[in-house]
Amino acid sequence: MSLIVQKFGGSSVANSERIFNVAGIISRAYLNGDDIIAVVSAQGDTTDNFIRMADEINPHGSKREMDVLLSAGEQVSMSLLAMAIEKLGYPVVSLLGWQAGFLTCATYGNAKIEKINTDRIKKELDKKNIVIVAGFQGLNTYGDITTLGRGGSDTSAVALAAVLNADKCKIYTDVDGVFTADPRRVKNAKKLDVISYDEMLELSTLGAQVLNNYSVEVAKKHNVEIEVLSSMNDIPGTIIKEVTQSEKVPICGIAADENVAMVSVTNIPDKPGAAFKLFSKLAAKGINVDIILQSENGKNLKDISFTIPKCQLDDSLEILNKYIENLENTKIIYEENVSKVSIVGTGMENQVGIASKMFEALYEEKINIQMIATSEIRVSVIICSGEVDQALNAIHNKFFGTVNTTL
Amino acid sequence: MSLIVQKFGGSSVANSERIFNVAGIISRAYLNGDDIIAVVSAQGDTTDNFIRMADEINPHGSKREMDVLLSAGEQVSMSLLAMAIEKLGYPVVSLLGWQAGFLTCATYGNAKIEKINTDRIKKELDKKNIVIVAGFQGLNTYGDITTLGRGGSDTSAVALAAVLNADKCKIYTDVDGVFTADPRRVKNAKKLDVISYDEMLELSTLGAQVLNNYSVEVAKKHNVEIEVLSSMNDIPGTIIKEVTQSEKVPICGIAADENVAMVSVTNIPDKPGAAFKLFSKLAAKGINVDIILQSENGKNLKDISFTIPKCQLDDSLEILNKYIENLENTKIIYEENVSKVSIVGTGMENQVGIASKMFEALYEEKINIQMIATSEIRVSVIICSGEVDQALNAIHNKFFGTVNTTL
Repeated sequence: MSLIVQKFGGSSVANSERIFNVAGIISRAYLNGDDIIAVVSAQGDTTDNFIRMADEINPHGSKREMDVLLSAGEQVSMSLLAMAIEKLGYPVVSLLGWQAGFLTCATYGNAKIEKINTDRIKKELDKKNIVIVAGFQGLNTYGDITTLGRGGSDTSAVALAAVLNADKCKIYTDVDGVFTADPRRVKNAKKLDVISYDEMLELSTLGAQVLNNYSVEVAKKHNVEIEVLSSMNDIPGTIIKEVTQSEKVPICGIAADENVAMVSVTNIPDKPGAAFKLFSKLAAKGINVDIILQSENGKNLKDISFTIPKCQLDDSLEILNKYIENLENTKIIYEENVSKVSIVGTGMENQVGIASKMFEALYEEKINIQMIATSEIRVSVIICSGEVDQALNAIHNKFFGTVNTTL
Repeated sequence: MSLIVQKFGGSSVANSERIFNVAGIISRAYLNGDDIIAVVSAQGDTTDNFIRMADEINPHGSKREMDVLLSAGEQVSMSLLAMAIEKLGYPVVSLLGWQAGFLTCATYGNAKIEKINTDRIKKELDKKNIVIVAGFQGLNTYGDITTLGRGGSDTSAVALAAVLNADKCKIYTDVDGVFTADPRRVKNAKKLDVISYDEMLELSTLGAQVLNNYSVEVAKKHNVEIEVLSSMNDIPGTIIKEVTQSEKVPICGIAADENVAMVSVTNIPDKPGAAFKLFSKLAAKGINVDIILQSENGKNLKDISFTIPKCQLDDSLEILNKYIENLENTKIIYEENVSKVSIVGTGMENQVGIASKMFEALYEEKINIQMIATSEIRVSVIICSGEVDQALNAIHNKFFGTVNTTL
């Protein structure tokens, strides 16, 4: 007998038909003789609808009350799911975050799980109940409801699997797993059987949204093996785990992030602290600076270029314009029509020529590289947004070939 | 400084505009220097929508899961109301049933409040917060959410007022108060300034749905004075309280109940226990028998006529048909096209001729009375449903006159 934690996202429980599909998956696992905990998100657009309702009343309402509102979403989905399982004839109980023992820090809207008191869950499992748990929510020390931020249900599931030492943690979603590239953009994209925590984290950060990042960090910390798979079919998904040296691949996937803008501040007087001043002002306003390039331009002046999320461009320009007010020749140039394309792989550092192979693919397509950044397990380039699909396919073909061969 | 408990029903918070109207009422009371607790129901049709969603999944889902689902309704309305009050600039906190300390019996769907642990509420009031409380819901000893049944938010408010010894308990609704008759049916209906607990209970039971009955019982038991008033205007409402002997009026109001069917079982062998057998079978299936008439018909046989809620007619006929299976001449006759019209007044018992005045009004309109039932504070008649409006107006005119005079 195993203990299995399953997690079902909002699209998997969006309507009655899908709720019964999920109830079927849960019931079949239960019939297998295993203990089942199913963590569930709010239905489809519920969270967005709640946010719209709150915005209509008060766009600056407190985060405490927002969490009260949002956490009602899982309350609806989990009770409906429980009723569907009852209809199929299996014993089931649904538990809200506070009932399931999720204790979090005090931060409303983006709380971290501090502890899970599993007494109630264990009691229900002992009674041979299927346990449905509301994802995304917990209780802080004030006795108030907190939420874990977007995608927080993934974290709820992984944390439960960690603390209960579950045998499996299966994250059901609307895709078949993690792919070498976005299958909607790259025809030959291939589902990965295995990916390491670090690679998954890089891919998520770089725009391949499969799992909430924090959940992968929690899984890595507690060594919880996750399977990401579709709730719509029976195909095995992608296992996310710590890979051994021999399992490392030079590149596991390619990601594109189009929420990028490139900003250049030119002719900055070349004095110590110039860069520090610039970036500390941006950091103070929560601007997420990514790639940074600095170059001298010969006349005791320097140019600094960097990328930021496109959605933060207006805020950034406001800060930068203030910054250059008293600087005579300093100018700001920006470019919104850029994207970041990245390759990721833990085996990269042990194999030479990975970056140049990527640049070669781009060169062959005559795609101009505007910036480059590398880490131990990734290479990113900034290119023109209009060339992203072409770039993704060219790089994918270069590394994975045009037919579905194994890595 | 007073402690005021306010209660707002679902129609009072049905949309953003109304939520701000309610936020205004609460804030003005708070500005008065008083401590404010506002108990709130789910928005407009939320509960009905949830029931529809649950029915689609599983019409026989457990009451436990149904309570989880339904209680999400107040969670939404209370947080939106809190955000509206925040927008107006006042300190506020919203509390769910379990946070506000509502402890109930274990009965899902129709729980009774057993205790209110007021620590959290008192702490919030001490901090000068306006406290919004989710009505209709509590927590049982298993740590599970329970609901108090339809109209349960009234009970939440009255129970809070009782346990906190509040100075006022104001039930805001979409009517101006309690009327001598339904103003939609009786043109000259007049709002009452005062009504006794017993009269209110009778009127509610007889079809004048203003307050949940159980809430009036709780108010009576703990001597909580309630004011029922409109959330849409500033007109004083109706006070519900224990009236003194001198305050008693012969009749306070007239009510009509159209959910009535009349059943006659004729030619029952006249043996001891015949009536007992008949009604115990109905009681066992939860059939609510109201008025009962029994008559001998001369040949060692008797006829029994009684009224039941129209919605229970099919169930009743099934039981009765089994009952008469072995009785040769016994027959069942039923009539769905009947209604009950009642007058209510605590002063009735001290004044002769009240019933005959009612019958006179009906006689003048040539309305045939099919059954009569009386208690110390009411007289009810069963008449043809098509004559209800005519009867209500005739009786109202007889007792209250055609113009708005004081009682």
